[in-house]
Amino acid sequence: MRTHYCGELRSEHIDQTVTLCGWVDRRRDHGGVIFIDLRDRRGVVQIVSDPERTPDSYNNADASRSEYVVKIVGKVSPRKDGAINPNLATGEVEIYADSIEILNSVNKQLPILVSASADGDQVKEDLRLKYRYLDLRREAMAKNLQLRHTVTKAMRRFLEDEENFIEVETPILTKSTPEGARDYLVPSRVNAGSWYALPQSPQLFKQLLMVAGCDRYYQIARCFRDEDLRADRQPEFTQLDMEMSFMSLDEILDLNERLICAIFKAAKGIDLPRPFPRITYAESMEKYGCDRPDTRFGLELVNVSDIVKDMGFKVFSGAVKNGGQVKVLPIPNGNDAISNVRIKPKGDLFNAACEMGAKGLAFIRVRENGEIDTIGAIKDNLSEEQKTELLQRTGAEPGTLLLFGAGDTDTVNKSLDRVRQLVGAEMGLIDENKLNFVWVTEFPMFEYNADEKRLEALHHPFTAPNPEDLDDLATARALAYDIVLNGIEVGGGSLRIYQRDVQEKVFATIGLSDEEAKEKFGFLLEAFEYGTPPHGGIAYGLDRLVMLMAQEESIRDVIAFPKTQQASCLLTEAPASVDDKQLKELYVASTVSDDE
Amino acid sequence: MRTHYCGELRSEHIDQTVTLCGWVDRRRDHGGVIFIDLRDRRGVVQIVSDPERTPDSYNNADASRSEYVVKIVGKVSPRKDGAINPNLATGEVEIYADSIEILNSVNKQLPILVSASADGDQVKEDLRLKYRYLDLRREAMAKNLQLRHTVTKAMRRFLEDEENFIEVETPILTKSTPEGARDYLVPSRVNAGSWYALPQSPQLFKQLLMVAGCDRYYQIARCFRDEDLRADRQPEFTQLDMEMSFMSLDEILDLNERLICAIFKAAKGIDLPRPFPRITYAESMEKYGCDRPDTRFGLELVNVSDIVKDMGFKVFSGAVKNGGQVKVLPIPNGNDAISNVRIKPKGDLFNAACEMGAKGLAFIRVRENGEIDTIGAIKDNLSEEQKTELLQRTGAEPGTLLLFGAGDTDTVNKSLDRVRQLVGAEMGLIDENKLNFVWVTEFPMFEYNADEKRLEALHHPFTAPNPEDLDDLATARALAYDIVLNGIEVGGGSLRIYQRDVQEKVFATIGLSDEEAKEKFGFLLEAFEYGTPPHGGIAYGLDRLVMLMAQEESIRDVIAFPKTQQASCLLTEAPASVDDKQLKELYVASTVSDDE
Repeated sequence: MRTHYCGELRSEHIDQTVTLCGWVDRRRDHGGVIFIDLRDRRGVVQIVSDPERTPDSYNNADASRSEYVVKIVGKVSPRKDGAINPNLATGEVEIYADSIEILNSVNKQLPILVSASADGDQVKEDLRLKYRYLDLRREAMAKNLQLRHTVTKAMRRFLEDEENFIEVETPILTKSTPEGARDYLVPSRVNAGSWYALPQSPQLFKQLLMVAGCDRYYQIARCFRDEDLRADRQPEFTQLDMEMSFMSLDEILDLNERLICAIFKAAKGIDLPRPFPRITYAESMEKYGCDRPDTRFGLELVNVSDIVKDMGFKVFSGAVKNGGQVKVLPIPNGNDAISNVRIKPKGDLFNAACEMGAKGLAFIRVRENGEIDTIGAIKDNLSEEQKTELLQRTGAEPGTLLLFGAGDTDTVNKSLDRVRQLVGAEMGLIDENKLNFVWVTEFPMFEYNADEKRLEALHHPFTAPNPEDLDDLATARALAYDIVLNGIEVGGGSLRIYQRDVQEKVFATIGLSDEEAKEKFGFLLEAFEYGTPPHGGIAYGLDRLVMLMAQEESIRDVIAFPKTQQASCLLTEAPASVDDKQLKELYVASTVSDDE
Repeated sequence: MRTHYCGELRSEHIDQTVTLCGWVDRRRDHGGVIFIDLRDRRGVVQIVSDPERTPDSYNNADASRSEYVVKIVGKVSPRKDGAINPNLATGEVEIYADSIEILNSVNKQLPILVSASADGDQVKEDLRLKYRYLDLRREAMAKNLQLRHTVTKAMRRFLEDEENFIEVETPILTKSTPEGARDYLVPSRVNAGSWYALPQSPQLFKQLLMVAGCDRYYQIARCFRDEDLRADRQPEFTQLDMEMSFMSLDEILDLNERLICAIFKAAKGIDLPRPFPRITYAESMEKYGCDRPDTRFGLELVNVSDIVKDMGFKVFSGAVKNGGQVKVLPIPNGNDAISNVRIKPKGDLFNAACEMGAKGLAFIRVRENGEIDTIGAIKDNLSEEQKTELLQRTGAEPGTLLLFGAGDTDTVNKSLDRVRQLVGAEMGLIDENKLNFVWVTEFPMFEYNADEKRLEALHHPFTAPNPEDLDDLATARALAYDIVLNGIEVGGGSLRIYQRDVQEKVFATIGLSDEEAKEKFGFLLEAFEYGTPPHGGIAYGLDRLVMLMAQEESIRDVIAFPKTQQASCLLTEAPASVDDKQLKELYVASTVSDDE
């Protein structure tokens, strides 16, 4: 139907007669001569219809409006010197239209302006989602879909061509394993009263593929979690899912670094430096107060518990005595940058710390000659020796502001992490062009769930414990790893348990009885009896990774047809009511009364 | 962990020390010297453990059993002349094992024998599905998964590299559109009383992507249909889904032929001849009695309605008078090959015809000199002129058997199609090495659904009618096409409607009221208002295509984790009962009483 894409025409095409199809991006009437910016997925080119020179195309050029679909036949011509547009890839040429055919028109007011010359980003998101087919025509969104494609293509090619992975599809209709998030359920018609669940991840299937000798598996897999949605969550999301046999942890991390490098090279032309830094979970918590450190800037936390553990200021010494910690966030030049108002009660940084559970935000301002400004209760209770050690350990210089967290370790970490990120951002310490990948390793196997009064798996219960820690599984480190980019977790994985007795011990540790373990995971336990290889894997959140690469704020901007935070699709209006007949066939009924 | 795959070792590796990981395929004790066939995904290599020469590996070699997982370090050595195994890719070498580490053992009797030397195909399918992780270790199944991967890889690369398609993911949680098969439903927790449906295909989303200017879309997409299962159906299945803008029907078929050629070249090394033959639906029904003709053999049907329409034999003339047909399946050499017993009442071919609705199976045996053998009622009522014309038109030679179908057109076609296929197969007329692709075109838009007393779309209601036939939509031909391989439909598609008024007329023709059309497909109708390009597409059944390429009988043999015909997974035991708490959260209840 066409001979070229609009966006690919260059001066080398001059004098060729081309046929183009696309959308009218803009139409301008310059005193009789009509100019049309014609747009397709490759870009825009200028069409000219001149009643003198191309009379046959004039009527339809005149009738065309924004977003009309047209087919144009014409000759590529050089633009006049003054008319060359250096900002446009096709800016050296224009097409004199011998004919214009209107293939389809626009019959209503456009709810979203599509043209690159309009600022579609300002449109309310609800409108963008309802008219997604117009929103996706916008250059920014088309680029995001293209980027997503480029990223998955780079993933596939690296894994297939460089590393001999095989792609295997795993079921979407599978079994509910309520360990983890809430499942989406599907009633079975053939097996009345039974339900399928949509997979939260292909975890068990990919491990079974290793048992099956698949050796190296990957899948760009759809996963489902029925959770209350945040900005970067969707009911269905996509992960790059991988599993490998007979590889050590170091070999797995090395392969994944090369994968990430291949992705960034293909999609952004960037050569990332290797190897990526690694930090243990313990060190990350100590230095950054979190397990996904943003290493683009300093402001590392300093543990001063031992210095203050006996001091008279009970907020500090009491925290340590109760098994907690006192940590400092030292902010060089913080004295100038951050006023007292902000770190005292009702101040924004004070509030930020309190939102994460802190009871307050003690501080010391370091002045010239080792002098300090702080509240009396601290100053009076701090010996000269303690003060010296404190200043030395925190690397404090004149002008440094020391912010304190004191209390249980978890709260101290959470609140100082939060304050660190706010301060880093507002003081301009974060280089937005940096791409700081870091591996976080040696996670604990379990964390305590205070609600359910039991240990639960920090990653998932198929994660292998560090062999050095088998004596006390409850406090064991896991052979797990997360990959963090600029403070955001983009992937995580582990070596897996491949021996039945170890798996049973882990199930027991999280409080699963033998019967429950067998009912839920019996097929996995049995598979371990028949020659399961050592194996491990990883999964990347594709939506989030592409969002970061596209420098978007929301994963919805890198998904063609996303759901809202109310888990609905504004375009199709899913979910929706269904015929009673359909429910009857499935042996289910809604428990919502019609009045509600 | 390893340096090489087992199956890749060749004489060029001789004298290298290698580390291998894999499964014990077989272990043989030859009077003290132990031979292990070590297997990984690449193949098998022979390991030798000699108590004299490699004493350190002997104890573990001795302890190994079938399917143990082992790691072996040893030197690649040439086999002695007499011991070279030309049937094995690695047959020129063997590894003397300096050390053998048992990574995992087998603790139960293996329910399925895995070794290539065992005949695992004989195992009951239920057992294979329950222990799928062992079944997939078998060479035949591992090859099928590899073939499937090779096919999808070839699809992606052709579409991406040669044709500029972009892969876009469409939602799995979407809206029920009961037009078509039964939907799988998913209750919404956030929107109580509302339901998502799993997509039967991404049809509407891919059309909306065309509206969005995506230009060329593809996806290897999971689709869902809650139908009663046949051998080649699964609750979830995979299709290669494509949609293109601004392409004519010929351009689409041409591109798809090149795609198919690329797939067969990459996966089977076969150069398919092009262009593929095309046949219209009408011609296919006339010649083959079906719309998916197996053109590997002749035996084409011949319509003789006009010859017999006035004859005294009422079975023939009555069929024509009642608006039906009389058709002949001429079988050269059929007189020798097919006895009277088989085509008379209670005969197998007679029964086959009757199972498809025929009331009988009249026949004529053509003898020398234009003599014929048949029942008196035919012979007596056939004039010499009619006989001559009949023999001429059917190309009958002495020895030819003519089988007749008479009745309504549909029954005649179905019964003669069935008989044609049986006869073709049993007379050895089908060359199993042939790969006969054929396009079937010009399908009717609609067929009559006698149960619901209304027209329904033969393909789907988004298929564009032939512009020549717009005056009478009910009898219009569609711009639709199926691609058939050896009598099996492997893909189908069409140009789509892209104008609101045409779409509304089609909805009206299948009996959708304006309100229903708006409720179900309002978003599509509205999208047509904002500049929808001419577009069309196709979808291939991936499972079925790979099944044919693997020469398997069941699509379950090319799916890693399939469901049974009762739609359950014998490995995980999905579907299963779920906690009442889960159902409560979803505002649904089962209507199956506990007693049932």
